[in-house]
Amino acid sequence: MNYSMIFYIISWILNVEAALMVPSCIVALLYGEREGMAFVASIALCLLLGLPRSRKAPPNKVFYTREGFVTVALSWICMSIMGALPFVFSGAVPKLIDALFETVSGFTTTGASILPAVEGLPHCILFWRSFTHWIGGMGVLVFLLCLLPLTGGGYHMNLMKAESPGPSVSKLVPKVRSTAKILYGIYIVLSVAELIFLLAGRMPIFDAICTTFGTAGTGGFGIKNDSIGGYSIYLQAVTTIFMILFGVNFNVFFFLSIRKPKAAFECEEARWYLGIIAASTLTITFFIRGLYPSLFLAFHHAAFQVGSIITTTGFATADFNLWPQVPRTILVLLMFIGACAGSTGGGIKVSRILLMIRSVSRELHQFIHPHSVNKVTLEGRTVEQGTLHSVHVFFITYALIFSASVLIIGFDGFDLTTNFTAVAATLNNIGPGLELVGPTQNFALFSPLSKLVLIFNMLAGRLEIFPLLLLFVKGTWKKF
Amino acid sequence: MNYSMIFYIISWILNVEAALMVPSCIVALLYGEREGMAFVASIALCLLLGLPRSRKAPPNKVFYTREGFVTVALSWICMSIMGALPFVFSGAVPKLIDALFETVSGFTTTGASILPAVEGLPHCILFWRSFTHWIGGMGVLVFLLCLLPLTGGGYHMNLMKAESPGPSVSKLVPKVRSTAKILYGIYIVLSVAELIFLLAGRMPIFDAICTTFGTAGTGGFGIKNDSIGGYSIYLQAVTTIFMILFGVNFNVFFFLSIRKPKAAFECEEARWYLGIIAASTLTITFFIRGLYPSLFLAFHHAAFQVGSIITTTGFATADFNLWPQVPRTILVLLMFIGACAGSTGGGIKVSRILLMIRSVSRELHQFIHPHSVNKVTLEGRTVEQGTLHSVHVFFITYALIFSASVLIIGFDGFDLTTNFTAVAATLNNIGPGLELVGPTQNFALFSPLSKLVLIFNMLAGRLEIFPLLLLFVKGTWKKF
Repeated sequence: MNYSMIFYIISWILNVEAALMVPSCIVALLYGEREGMAFVASIALCLLLGLPRSRKAPPNKVFYTREGFVTVALSWICMSIMGALPFVFSGAVPKLIDALFETVSGFTTTGASILPAVEGLPHCILFWRSFTHWIGGMGVLVFLLCLLPLTGGGYHMNLMKAESPGPSVSKLVPKVRSTAKILYGIYIVLSVAELIFLLAGRMPIFDAICTTFGTAGTGGFGIKNDSIGGYSIYLQAVTTIFMILFGVNFNVFFFLSIRKPKAAFECEEARWYLGIIAASTLTITFFIRGLYPSLFLAFHHAAFQVGSIITTTGFATADFNLWPQVPRTILVLLMFIGACAGSTGGGIKVSRILLMIRSVSRELHQFIHPHSVNKVTLEGRTVEQGTLHSVHVFFITYALIFSASVLIIGFDGFDLTTNFTAVAATLNNIGPGLELVGPTQNFALFSPLSKLVLIFNMLAGRLEIFPLLLLFVKGTWKKF
Repeated sequence: MNYSMIFYIISWILNVEAALMVPSCIVALLYGEREGMAFVASIALCLLLGLPRSRKAPPNKVFYTREGFVTVALSWICMSIMGALPFVFSGAVPKLIDALFETVSGFTTTGASILPAVEGLPHCILFWRSFTHWIGGMGVLVFLLCLLPLTGGGYHMNLMKAESPGPSVSKLVPKVRSTAKILYGIYIVLSVAELIFLLAGRMPIFDAICTTFGTAGTGGFGIKNDSIGGYSIYLQAVTTIFMILFGVNFNVFFFLSIRKPKAAFECEEARWYLGIIAASTLTITFFIRGLYPSLFLAFHHAAFQVGSIITTTGFATADFNLWPQVPRTILVLLMFIGACAGSTGGGIKVSRILLMIRSVSRELHQFIHPHSVNKVTLEGRTVEQGTLHSVHVFFITYALIFSASVLIIGFDGFDLTTNFTAVAATLNNIGPGLELVGPTQNFALFSPLSKLVLIFNMLAGRLEIFPLLLLFVKGTWKKF
């Protein structure tokens, strides 16, 4: 294990995190909030730990998948611990486990909160809370790849593989570093576009920035107790559209940016994703039409909630916990499907679902024609057996972690729907679940052990399980 | 597709079913019940359809996996339709869909009922209901293999593969026909043993026979409204032990019968199965200790319910729907694990769970040592890649069918726990679920469409999905 390289990268992560805390200090200054000192102290600590080991790149650049996975997992853990400090120092979230829960929920773009109310919090804290979504959405390692001139050993790819969501990472351009830059470029352009649309609807600038962060990262932390419910229909509609956009495979935007609209429209995953959104929205509209004064409003709230859940954002304009059973069931299923691979959204991902359905279909055809070679395709290309195998094992691991989590948090004694949806909401990085963790509730009720399990789930969900799981395997730490 | 052979076998199935209805006629005679005529009529119909095509075996004996799967699926469907006739003719279950639900539930050893009360039913109907469990438990095709002198084309194995539960079929002896006879031999010996123990506890003979049928097939239909709750502690304990025994891999009993106790005790799957039962029983005992007058009684009821759920029998001595959340959660998880492969129990099967956990562990080691060859083992042998692949695809298919079913029956508007556990209880062939389909409730509340979905689930669960699914693939019916 190339420890010196791992330390080097983690040190850089801490330096970057210190820099990313500066905007929160500025917010504190602007609003004259004393809590800004909590950020100054946290920045100092990050630099104290980060600077000494980040000055010189270690000579040994050999970096395997194992190192890539471990680095990403450890980076996210360190980042979350340091990111929790401002909450603790400022007294906004006095308990460390709660602050860690909140920060992990932020960076993993989950949006599950242990806070019963957010409106009394200082602006700088609210800003940091939302900003963690934006940072975590595209990934901090991907960000580092844009910054650092790292060379050698296929090394970038192993980091990117571990942090990017989806069954396989497609490089947009031959160089990994350029791919990272393009991805961040698209991310920034889309974010600025949303900000402009929100400001055009007369949303206050602070609200607009925080809402943009929450949407772009598909996070879901709001700065109001009623999430997005209090804003105008126009602002809610803008949020709906941008949530759905940030759940689209970024390849689509890349193709659009290089003027290949045909390639963009042919993206199979994105088409299925949009199809599922349309079908779910129409069905839910039908079932909740009686609850709203007009059919348009029913459609509006159905679309918002569907977009929020399938992209795993977790914003809410309505308490869907009070909706009839069919909409509730559809939303629970959408929690698992998730957004597209290569987007900022979480969940199992539409492409994995497609690949699994096609695997099953191939298996059936294999029974009929045992000697014929049946191929599984996606996006017009044959999917390699190894990728399919990874998708299968991913899903099985996912199901095992899911079951184990429901069992452990079950010891807190809450009802099955609460536990089931709490795990679904964290492992899929959504935020709210149903019943006691519904959109108007929060996660404070769980015991510290359950919170740790849910923190694990959020990180496992964001990093797609294996990087995090690898930390718990003895062999990872052995020399060989 | 070798249609003449398929028709030949299904015709034989109907003949056998006619013969299997004779005991119900005798019961009707003994109790002087007019409903016996319903069986006479059903027998006549079975023979009318079965006899003409079963006289001469067709010359073409070529029989592939595809034919084996389709034959088994169609046999079970035909058998269920004909088996439902006595319920309809006698007026015990007037609606055809309900009678079909009840019969499929019987043959698939699910034990989910649409009847609110059973104590008013005639003895011959109760006998048939329980007898279907015993018939379905070991499988009617396996039974046919003992009877019919079928030869040629690896043909037996393809039938047995489709009807026997588990990731791979192990022939106990080189000849499939002898294996089938040994399996039925063990089945009969164990059943007679249970009957003797029940009679020794002064259970009335009719009750003892029906309870044995329900236990042996891991079915769960009772002949009392309170299932097994009204019998003595001794009788409940006997039932507990035999439920658990019928969930053990029959290989274990085979090794014991040929005096190889060492091989029997080394069976990895059976050891895990018993370990899970022990751990679950002790945990549940701890959580329900306050609900019963003594610790022994708490243990007794915990063991009964754990044995009943993990073997997917579905008998009850207590309404576990009223137990605290931890026991409920454990029981729901046990619903999915199920019994051993090669037993009469349902569920995903302990060996599949073991193989999946080991697949995940292998995947993690593959990240650490990408170039080493890591093997998955079970029962001391290396598991072939093809078997692992089948297990993965099985689980994925299972999850997809599960989700689709929850969605469709969700349109009836019941709560999520009811729908979720109704699907779990049918797809795993258990019987009762939680909430509205809890142990003291029944499945009559669902719409006909939902009942069809649940019927599909019960058959898919018993035949392990693919044989049934193959009926819905266009390619199956094409010539090639």
